[in-house]
Amino acid sequence: MINETYKEMLGAKSVIRELSEYATARGREIGYENVFDFSLGNPSVAVPQEFTDEMIRLLQTEDTMTLHGYTPSLGNPLYKEKIAQSLNKRFGMNYGPEHIFPTTGAAGAISHAIRAITKPGDKALAFAPFFPEYRPYITGAGVELEVVPADTETFQINFDKFEEMFTKDVAAVLVNTPNNPSGVAYSTETLTRLAEILTAKSKEFGHTVYLLSDEPYREIVFKGADAPYVSKFYDHTLSCYSFSKSLSLPGERIGYVAVNPKCDGAEFIVPMCGQISRGTGHNCPPSIIQQAVAKVCDMTADLSVYETNMNIIYDTLVELGFTVVKPGGTFYIMPKALEEDSIEFCKKAKEYDLIFVPTDGFGAPGFFRMAYCIETEKVERAMERLRKFVNEVYKK
Amino acid sequence: MINETYKEMLGAKSVIRELSEYATARGREIGYENVFDFSLGNPSVAVPQEFTDEMIRLLQTEDTMTLHGYTPSLGNPLYKEKIAQSLNKRFGMNYGPEHIFPTTGAAGAISHAIRAITKPGDKALAFAPFFPEYRPYITGAGVELEVVPADTETFQINFDKFEEMFTKDVAAVLVNTPNNPSGVAYSTETLTRLAEILTAKSKEFGHTVYLLSDEPYREIVFKGADAPYVSKFYDHTLSCYSFSKSLSLPGERIGYVAVNPKCDGAEFIVPMCGQISRGTGHNCPPSIIQQAVAKVCDMTADLSVYETNMNIIYDTLVELGFTVVKPGGTFYIMPKALEEDSIEFCKKAKEYDLIFVPTDGFGAPGFFRMAYCIETEKVERAMERLRKFVNEVYKK
Repeated sequence: MINETYKEMLGAKSVIRELSEYATARGREIGYENVFDFSLGNPSVAVPQEFTDEMIRLLQTEDTMTLHGYTPSLGNPLYKEKIAQSLNKRFGMNYGPEHIFPTTGAAGAISHAIRAITKPGDKALAFAPFFPEYRPYITGAGVELEVVPADTETFQINFDKFEEMFTKDVAAVLVNTPNNPSGVAYSTETLTRLAEILTAKSKEFGHTVYLLSDEPYREIVFKGADAPYVSKFYDHTLSCYSFSKSLSLPGERIGYVAVNPKCDGAEFIVPMCGQISRGTGHNCPPSIIQQAVAKVCDMTADLSVYETNMNIIYDTLVELGFTVVKPGGTFYIMPKALEEDSIEFCKKAKEYDLIFVPTDGFGAPGFFRMAYCIETEKVERAMERLRKFVNEVYKK
Repeated sequence: MINETYKEMLGAKSVIRELSEYATARGREIGYENVFDFSLGNPSVAVPQEFTDEMIRLLQTEDTMTLHGYTPSLGNPLYKEKIAQSLNKRFGMNYGPEHIFPTTGAAGAISHAIRAITKPGDKALAFAPFFPEYRPYITGAGVELEVVPADTETFQINFDKFEEMFTKDVAAVLVNTPNNPSGVAYSTETLTRLAEILTAKSKEFGHTVYLLSDEPYREIVFKGADAPYVSKFYDHTLSCYSFSKSLSLPGERIGYVAVNPKCDGAEFIVPMCGQISRGTGHNCPPSIIQQAVAKVCDMTADLSVYETNMNIIYDTLVELGFTVVKPGGTFYIMPKALEEDSIEFCKKAKEYDLIFVPTDGFGAPGFFRMAYCIETEKVERAMERLRKFVNEVYKK
């Protein structure tokens, strides 16, 4: 019989998806250039030419059976080697290829990592504001997700609440820095304190609590931001990465888990991920994409537009009197709404063709998210519209 | 803490993988041309040039953000449309794009399909001989897999045992035709009787029992074989397909679930698969591969070598006195070993550098599998070696 659990999930539509669909429909009506769609976190900069060139080179020169054949179940050796070298060079780590497990994006990475270091019935903690898809990724492994309320002043970690909620059944803690939706990067101070608490609690409870670090925005960091590499602070860290944002390749589903070589069970975790794949039917990411990304894994697309957009938006928000934390990276910003009910605020903004996402679904009501992965020219026009909206609706 | 279940799985090495590794090591020692490796089911014919051309065209002409951007969560519309058209034209079906869910190969397809139509604790039946990876795919969904013993005379279905084991808690039946490892295709007669039993049991138990049809070898069918399209026989069928074998693209992880439009809940199953993906971190198969395969989904690589090889091997086996069922398709054949213990038989064959896989792991001991996706010239030399082996060891 049809599985009722999954069938019931069909009812709950994603707020982001609904807003994005509305924006598209509205664009058909009044012209896309007149709809200021800040709903979707879809990269807006071109893929590096070097990636395209390498794909074409592989297709033109490699034997098709090698190029498109099965990769070993733990991933393409060259891809693993290149990722390890890149991380070691950039962050002073000591990864070997045996610590890298290629996955279909960060979703695949988190789904494997959580299964490797928990058992069904365990608990995991995440910090608000958080990416809502963490819920299916974590609960899909039979693990209960509890969300530590946000520190809404800074969007760093609310440590008092964290320590209060950090009970013995917690097996994993999940962080996302730079953060979707706040745009904030966790500081050296934050990560130091986080590591201290993790170490103390692991000792107190007599079992290692792992840190899952979701870092798809790691390469989108703005000038002056303090955004260190998470795994440097705490040995028992599994870093979950995706090239979706740094290379603008979200549809190609390519990422990895990087297991800190000093973590408990470091020698088992990648082979265990291979076993986990068998039960989810995931297998490796596409062969040709692994090979092409191995060549360009040290590069990024031209990500500078995101910082340009952020500065324009941040300055306008401050000028208009919004309470807002300046992002350290990503292509998101998360201002406080001008009324308590941010859903209501976003509804009113929609009347001005400004498409913002209320952050209730991110575990932090009262705010809204703007995804500014759009052309700068449009951002500028959107700021005019925002001024008009705020002045007419909230300053009359 | 490290998950003990997955850690324990690390101990059990795959027999096929071990034999294949042995063959590679032995090749380094005595020359690869002198090792007759029939262990791995890896396609041995080139990818169609049209696929490569279409990949290059997409890379050279399409906007990178469209080409590599997120696909809709239920898949690329063109891919879905083209698959539906192709199946309708070839098999007289009536699929719409809404019945096609793109997956990362057949592994992804089976893993989604089983979750859609069962709940944890249900039972599924498969027929020996069967592909051993069905066990993790099915049990990964929390479903218990029971295997109906083989009809070793014909490798069709052992219907007496099937009816005996078909209890009320069975929610799904899994078939694989043409079959890995036997090479046999289920006949019109077999599928007709299977459908009758499924219909009768569904009625008796008051719930629809679904048929999952795993068909990665559907396009490798030999002259004169009766190998009809499974979904024609029973409405409540989910067809699980992979282009791994037909286009020689196993590493690119591209396949689909095709939901029979007349099956119970046909309108829900594809959207439910989208929800299932969220819990396993699977998401869609790679964007560019979906787009390229949409163009060539009606084609196949030149698969004729498999039939050439099969005929050479089958004739030699018969001549040497083996009991063997002639394959209707695939690139496998499954003769009876010349002694009761097929593991012992394969060990002796290995002394002659003939690498065969005992089928104990496929649920049918006493036989061995030969994967003949290798060059015909090598098959011919292997037959000489096989003659020598049989004459020296079993006919002295």
